[in-house]
Amino acid sequence: MPALDLSSSAVDLTRTICDIPSVSGDEASLADAIEAAVRDLEHLDFYRDGDTIVVRTAFGRAQRVVIAGHIDTVPINDNVPTRDVEIDGAPYLWGRGTVDMKAGVAVQLKLAAELTDARVDLTWMWYDHEEVDADLNGLTRLARTRPDLFEGDFAILGEPSNGTVEGGCNGNLRAIVRTRGVRAHSARAWIGENAIHAAAPVLQRLADYRPREVPVDGLVYREGLNAVRVNGGVAGNVIPDLCEIEVNYRFAPSVSGAGAEQHVREVFEGFEVDVIDVAEGARPGLDAALAQEFVLAVGAEPRPKYGWTDVARFSALGVPAVNYGPGDPMLAHHDEERVALSQIEDVERGLRSWLTTH
Amino acid sequence: MPALDLSSSAVDLTRTICDIPSVSGDEASLADAIEAAVRDLEHLDFYRDGDTIVVRTAFGRAQRVVIAGHIDTVPINDNVPTRDVEIDGAPYLWGRGTVDMKAGVAVQLKLAAELTDARVDLTWMWYDHEEVDADLNGLTRLARTRPDLFEGDFAILGEPSNGTVEGGCNGNLRAIVRTRGVRAHSARAWIGENAIHAAAPVLQRLADYRPREVPVDGLVYREGLNAVRVNGGVAGNVIPDLCEIEVNYRFAPSVSGAGAEQHVREVFEGFEVDVIDVAEGARPGLDAALAQEFVLAVGAEPRPKYGWTDVARFSALGVPAVNYGPGDPMLAHHDEERVALSQIEDVERGLRSWLTTH
Repeated sequence: MPALDLSSSAVDLTRTICDIPSVSGDEASLADAIEAAVRDLEHLDFYRDGDTIVVRTAFGRAQRVVIAGHIDTVPINDNVPTRDVEIDGAPYLWGRGTVDMKAGVAVQLKLAAELTDARVDLTWMWYDHEEVDADLNGLTRLARTRPDLFEGDFAILGEPSNGTVEGGCNGNLRAIVRTRGVRAHSARAWIGENAIHAAAPVLQRLADYRPREVPVDGLVYREGLNAVRVNGGVAGNVIPDLCEIEVNYRFAPSVSGAGAEQHVREVFEGFEVDVIDVAEGARPGLDAALAQEFVLAVGAEPRPKYGWTDVARFSALGVPAVNYGPGDPMLAHHDEERVALSQIEDVERGLRSWLTTH
Repeated sequence: MPALDLSSSAVDLTRTICDIPSVSGDEASLADAIEAAVRDLEHLDFYRDGDTIVVRTAFGRAQRVVIAGHIDTVPINDNVPTRDVEIDGAPYLWGRGTVDMKAGVAVQLKLAAELTDARVDLTWMWYDHEEVDADLNGLTRLARTRPDLFEGDFAILGEPSNGTVEGGCNGNLRAIVRTRGVRAHSARAWIGENAIHAAAPVLQRLADYRPREVPVDGLVYREGLNAVRVNGGVAGNVIPDLCEIEVNYRFAPSVSGAGAEQHVREVFEGFEVDVIDVAEGARPGLDAALAQEFVLAVGAEPRPKYGWTDVARFSALGVPAVNYGPGDPMLAHHDEERVALSQIEDVERGLRSWLTTH
């Protein structure tokens, strides 16, 4: 098992943990290495469930901050082991996981080991299966078995945010819009009814749709309503009796799940709509005192997070939560995934200074 | 190997050959049974290539008629062996192949054996792989290896036509219409371009399309332009960069392949169109003297054939060809496939009387 040296630089630590592959479902080696590196640290209580590891301080502070990051990645595509590259004169670490989100995890691991006297009590969570079905997510499991571990006054997810604070996140709704017809041989099409042709107005409404921009607690959330899949057809000589359009609605955190569903049903009025999945967003949580101090300390203008992240879990539990991590979210899952070394250092500096300033 | 008794009734012979499964690719048992039944008949020259069997008379007549039928079926769906049923008081034979097209083959086998002194010379063809890719079709193979066997003054395909004469066939064009976009994470859709939304006008043009009705040699061919498949999407959280609509154009036999292609390109002007496959139709061929006599003899008003059939092969070789067989073409490939016994008898009587009247 490769050993993690938590006293090495956050950049070196990022390189080391990126080079231990941990595609979702295959996180055990990395989780073992993390366990070996942290379980005997005296200032931390250790807990492991599957490949999710939680360590907590018990300094006796008045407030507690939860800092979390997932240790899995999307599949490797010839981009592990990592390599050092230079882009426009700046040094980068290139490879799967560098952005999403092992650089963030590396910073967290290093600070977990070094912050033996922070201004708040700290709960560090490193968890598995974030990149796949929510049912498999390590935090879903943990919320069921140890909800007490989520207790805190503020939470920071280390998701890539270019080293700025990205508040909250949009909600996420998936639905299937269906059109139906009647099968027939395509040589005698007039006997049937073409379900694919019937889908024309569904696509037209999507093409015409103008997404809203919704201000929430001072940040403006941009919504989106998109077809992400379309599927119809039986065979090359058959008039199709079914066409399914999967739509994805990203909705502002001020909109409830029920409100999002109602909106989608209104947009596709007259069509069969089957809502598959709704995950509410998270308000930015920047009105919390700790959050305001944090934003001030890291010194960057907060922005809205568009993608759904696990901050919504904390938000749903009443814990204000933000995203703060190195890496450009546009490069997450990308074949050209790479992180600027300066962002790793910036995020380490930001977290360290805020957590150690008494 | 089950033996075929060609002196049994055409109905009984239909039952026997339907109960020898011969789904495309698996025709050998039936071909062997046919070979055993016909190869030693003195008035017929025998030829076999794979599972295609051709037998010919050499009466020395001035004219030759080719009569052909495929011996394969689409997959069985719990409907073999056949069974006798009664519908609205009329007797039917129920099961796979009864319509498409073993009743037609049974009539042909019986007449091939019995017509030892016909008014014309006869070429009988029973061939494999009609229900699958044209490349595999026994007639495709035969046209390459023994084009001389197709020579004739008139051809009759035993495809189901409800016992009436269905002249010629529509042509068949398959094309892919593509719309393209730019991938992006669906949480930041504005960075990408949605290829599925871009397909809205393609589907709208199909929905608005009014197919032509084209008179050809006295029959009116109804055209059709339909989406038969639509496919687009990468993943539930990705703005799709490609949408493909497979369209199927059934065009009148007076329209050339090039003309059909041009028409489809005009309908989808402004979009990427990739023509996959064009098979020209066949004019009804009812102006040929033999055809007119045939129509008169069987005593049914000729109608246009909408589906593409192998008559087009003969037509392309300059041999006028019609479809004439028992069974409702609407029930071909259907799970409720069944043939009225009276149609089997009618078609046998029609062919026999025309071929024996000197």
